[in-house]
Parts: sequence; C-alpha cells; structure tokens
Amino acid sequence: MHEVNKLKPAIKPLRYENGVLYILDQRELPQNEVWLEIAELEPLLDAVRGLAARGAPLLGIAAGYAVLIGMNKFYSDNPRNLMERYRLVREQIAETRPTARNLFVTLERMDDIVINKLPRGLENLLEAIRREADNIYKEEVESCEVIARIGAPLLENADRVLTHCNTGALATGGVGTALGVIHAAHLENGIETVWVDETRPLLQGARLTAWELSRLDIPYKIICDDVAASLMLRGLVDAVIVGADRITANGDTANKIGTLNLAILCDYFDIPFYIAAPTSTIDMTLSTGNDIEIEQREPREIRGWHDTIWAPAEAPAENPAFDITPIKLITSFITERGIIENPGTILTFD
Amino acid sequence: MHEVNKLKPAIKPLRYENGVLYILDQRELPQNEVWLEIAELEPLLDAVRGLAARGAPLLGIAAGYAVLIGMNKFYSDNPRNLMERYRLVREQIAETRPTARNLFVTLERMDDIVINKLPRGLENLLEAIRREADNIYKEEVESCEVIARIGAPLLENADRVLTHCNTGALATGGVGTALGVIHAAHLENGIETVWVDETRPLLQGARLTAWELSRLDIPYKIICDDVAASLMLRGLVDAVIVGADRITANGDTANKIGTLNLAILCDYFDIPFYIAAPTSTIDMTLSTGNDIEIEQREPREIRGWHDTIWAPAEAPAENPAFDITPIKLITSFITERGIIENPGTILTFD
Repeated sequence: MHEVNKLKPAIKPLRYENGVLYILDQRELPQNEVWLEIAELEPLLDAVRGLAARGAPLLGIAAGYAVLIGMNKFYSDNPRNLMERYRLVREQIAETRPTARNLFVTLERMDDIVINKLPRGLENLLEAIRREADNIYKEEVESCEVIARIGAPLLENADRVLTHCNTGALATGGVGTALGVIHAAHLENGIETVWVDETRPLLQGARLTAWELSRLDIPYKIICDDVAASLMLRGLVDAVIVGADRITANGDTANKIGTLNLAILCDYFDIPFYIAAPTSTIDMTLSTGNDIEIEQREPREIRGWHDTIWAPAEAPAENPAFDITPIKLITSFITERGIIENPGTILTFD
Repeated sequence: MHEVNKLKPAIKPLRYENGVLYILDQRELPQNEVWLEIAELEPLLDAVRGLAARGAPLLGIAAGYAVLIGMNKFYSDNPRNLMERYRLVREQIAETRPTARNLFVTLERMDDIVINKLPRGLENLLEAIRREADNIYKEEVESCEVIARIGAPLLENADRVLTHCNTGALATGGVGTALGVIHAAHLENGIETVWVDETRPLLQGARLTAWELSRLDIPYKIICDDVAASLMLRGLVDAVIVGADRITANGDTANKIGTLNLAILCDYFDIPFYIAAPTSTIDMTLSTGNDIEIEQREPREIRGWHDTIWAPAEAPAENPAFDITPIKLITSFITERGIIENPGTILTFD
C-alpha cells in the first residue's frame, strides 16, 4: 500500500448543516480557531468579501451554499418571484470577488438548476440547489486528490519545493491543489523542506500554509517573499508549485500577487514552475491574460497588519490582489484530467 | 539656479555632543520620534545590533562615534593599555553587523589613527578620534550630495522609479544614496511616482522611505515586495535604483534581501537597474560576491512584526538579511567619483 493513501486534508474549513453554513474564519488563523455560523446571505457575502473563506476552489464551494442560503426561507412558491430572487442573489455573489473563476463556474451550474430546470415549488428548488452545492464540494475534494496523485511524480526529485499563498485544505476544502501535490510527494518520497512564501499583504503563506504543514508534519520554513531569488541563486529550490485563480484559454494564469515574480525567477534560474488547479479554474471565454479583471484592494492592507500600522498613517499604496503569469513562463499545468502544457486543449477535446 | 540646490536631507538621524551620541531610533519610526542618548559602548552596540541605526553609510558613521565612546572616560594614558582597550572596542564594533562594508572602512581609518599614529596621551587621542569620526560623517554627507547630482541625469526620462529598503537620510546621514538620486531627479524633472517596496521583514521601505518621501513632498506609493513584477509587466516601472551594503572588486553587490529579485526582474523586462553607493562601500579585498558573509537574522522577525505575531508561534524560518546581485545584472554604479560599470576600476585607478 502506497503511503500516498494517507493523503488527507489538514482540516475541513466549511460545512453546511440545517440551514447554517459553518465557516472557519481564516482571518483569525493560526492564532484562533473561530467558526462563523451563517444563516443569512448578507453576513455570508461579508465573510467572502472579507476573506474569512478564500482560495479559488473554496470560493466555488462557498458560492454554492451562498445561493442556497440566499434562497432559503424565501416567502414564495411563485416561479417569477423565485427567479427574481435568484437573480438578485446571484448578482450579489458575483460581485464579491471578481478574479476567482471557480465562483462563476458555480453560478453557471446554479443557473442551469434554477433557470433552465426550475423545479416546481420552493422546497424542491432548495433541495436541488443543496444537491448541486454538495456535488460541487464533493467534486472539488475529489479533484484535489486526483491532482495530488497526478502531480506527485513531478516532484519525485524535488527535495526543496517553494510555494506561494495557501492552496491547501483551507483554499479548497480537500487536500489542496499545489499543497496537495506537495503533500502527496512528501508521502511518496519525502520532502526535505517546503519553502513557504510569506505572501504579503494577507500573509496566507506565513499564517495558513505554515499552519497546515505543521498539522501535517511536513517540514517547512517560512521566508519573506523577497527571499526566493536568493535561495535559487544558492541552489536551494528544486521546483516551484502554486495554484491558480483563473486560467485563460491560452494558459495565461491569474494567481495571488507575487506569482509572476516567482515564474520569472524560475525562468532565469531554469527551475520548473508548475500550476496545480482543477479545470473549474479554466475560463475558455477569455483568450489571454489581458482579459482578466484584477481585483484591487484597500491601501490599509499594506500599511500594516490588522491593528498594527507600520507605514505613515496616510501612505498611498498600490494593492493588486493578483498578477498574471504568461503561459510561456509555465512549465506545465497539473489538473484532475492530467498534466498538460496548454490548458485550452484539455477542454477543447471534451 | 537649479532646483537641485534645494536638495536637503529629510532629517539628521545622528549627532554627537559632549560625550553623548544622540540616535534617532529607527525601529520606532514613523509612529514615534524617539531619540536615544548614549554615552556608553554597550548600549551603543545594542542599538546598532538592534537596528536603531542602520544603513551602510550610517553604520560607517556610527562606528566612528562608537570608537570615540568606547575610548571615552578611559582610565589610563599608558599606550599599551590604550591599545589594548582599542582592540577590545574595535572587536566588539566589528561583530555587530558583518555585511556593511562602511563599518569596516571606518575601523580601518581608526586603526590608522590609534595604532599607526597613536597621539600622546588620552586627551589627544580622543581629540584625534573625534576629528576622524566627524570627518567620516562629513565625507559621507558630501558623497551623498555628489551621488545625487551625478545620478539624477540617469533618471531624466524615468517618471516611475522603484526603490527597495531605505537609502535616504536615515541610512546615510546625508541626502541618501539611491533616495538622494531620486530626490535630485525629482527636483530637476519631477517624478510621477516612486514605487516604495515594503521591504520585509523589517519594513524599511514602508516605514522609513515612505516617511522620508512624505517629509520631502515627493509622490510615492508603497507596494508589497511581490508586486514589482506585476507593475513591470504593466509597463509602470521606468528604472530601479537601490543602495549597497558591500560591493566586491568585480562588482557583485550585497544589498538588502530582495535586491537580487529586482535585478532579475529588470533583466527580464529590460529595465535599467542602478546601484547608488559611496566608494566606501567597495571592498577590494573580496574578488566576487561568493566571498561576502551574509548576516542571518532571527526567525521571529518573519513570524510577525514587533508584538504582533501572525505565523504559528514556533514556525521555522529562513531569514537572510541580504542577498548578492551579480555584476552582470547591474546596469551601472553611481558613486561620488562618477558613474561606472565596474567598481573595481574606479579604485584601481587611484
């Protein structure tokens, strides 16, 4: 029996029970394990906007339950009212985070349930939405596991792997995308060190990835984002693997700010640069990265961390949440449908 | 009269008066302007180790007064005792910060005063040390001004300039090296935006450079260190200019961690990458960057900021304070003796 059968998520960050969505508040990690109990749409949208739950696949999952909670306890069985309510709910969800593809894939799947198939009566509709939300969750968890197993051989000779942001259980609901691959590779061959980029401004690496790796007993060291080049120059990075928030038809990839930086360094030092992502992240409606909308966030995120401010109080800042890595810098994509060099092909062959 | 005649430091971060060295505590900036009053060697060494004063040229200046304070109020006129005391003081100063060249240049100049010329009697010795320390300060201030004027024309067509760490008055005692050039260029031609790298882990960019630029009314925006690549891809960076802590004979340059990263990005995007530094930063005894000792600092600096901790409490970390940029990635050096492409030549021609 392969060690890789021990593959399991570090935690299950989200669950739905009896009208309530329980969300592990990732803003409080790793210091506090706070669970939000959400039964209304507005606080759920706030939680998503505020990054209590984040990570492209987890946003896809959360969006499914957001539709459910938005339609729950609705007052009417009238199809026209239901449809109107759905359109409002959908619009509000779509506006929370513009870049993650998975969120919109979920909404398109819900469109099919609510608009195309509209079951008779509210109860039946809620049940169908619930089933689809559960399916989306289940599929994302399964995708992670397949991605992890497919990707692990690529890291067979990579003892020191660098990753950026958080792509583990907290970002996906399953074992993770890039972090799942690292986890599987560690179970198969052992990993000497995972270099964990801090990932300013929201520190998902230093906080969340470090926490997950601690729980999984995988050896790691956190580094400031600007240390990667120095490690590479010293020959201490064998591969870089990250996730994705949106991949265009030609393969250009939006991911957490700092990803393009790593891809250019890999190009310079001739180190493989992998993207691990479910195909739900691929957006065939966009031809290149130029078409991707980049979320701009508040300057206060850069002026400090939570209540700690280190910059001048009014310091202006530029705070894009993502950057675009052109396809030419990506060694290959690891998806649940296989390892590919052009993500467009895998969907075109459907 | 050229606008550049308005060139002036944002602040004078260090001064010596009647046996007391007054140091602006840079760890408290920009929130609090705290002045340390130091009359003994031990607290002065602590202040230097703890980065109350930092920046290669300022370390060179501080080392001069450290010798003075270490020898001050000494008990003996006996040459053998004086020499013994000096050797002890020198050793302690040399151990505080291994990478900055300027600190050692100061110690070598003091060797000449104390060991080679040893003036008769403690009073005369202290006077000679004081004179040399003042000279070093004065020369660094003058170097900055010359560097600023010499470098400004290089930024004539650079409206958006990116810089890393802090190289202004706080790092040099004068108008700064890289920041001095930016300042002079702004007075000559105007600068649209200075992109200020946050500079994790000690945030010298977000705290100190932002503060200096605010005081100087130069437009700026702080960015996380991992944003530079994204800005360059979008065509928003015309030049990168940074300082140096130590330059070897062949031109390899040690500077704040993250500098190599920027140099590689500039190479990829074909953007000029300048080092601005006084020739006191050049170390002709080292042939290449491989010979430079890199200071490793505490993991706690990466786990958070001051009392705010965001990583798991025991998270292991890799925390090099500097990295080495190979000469092939450096467009040119701006020194007080001119703009050069190989720093070895300028000293060899002496």
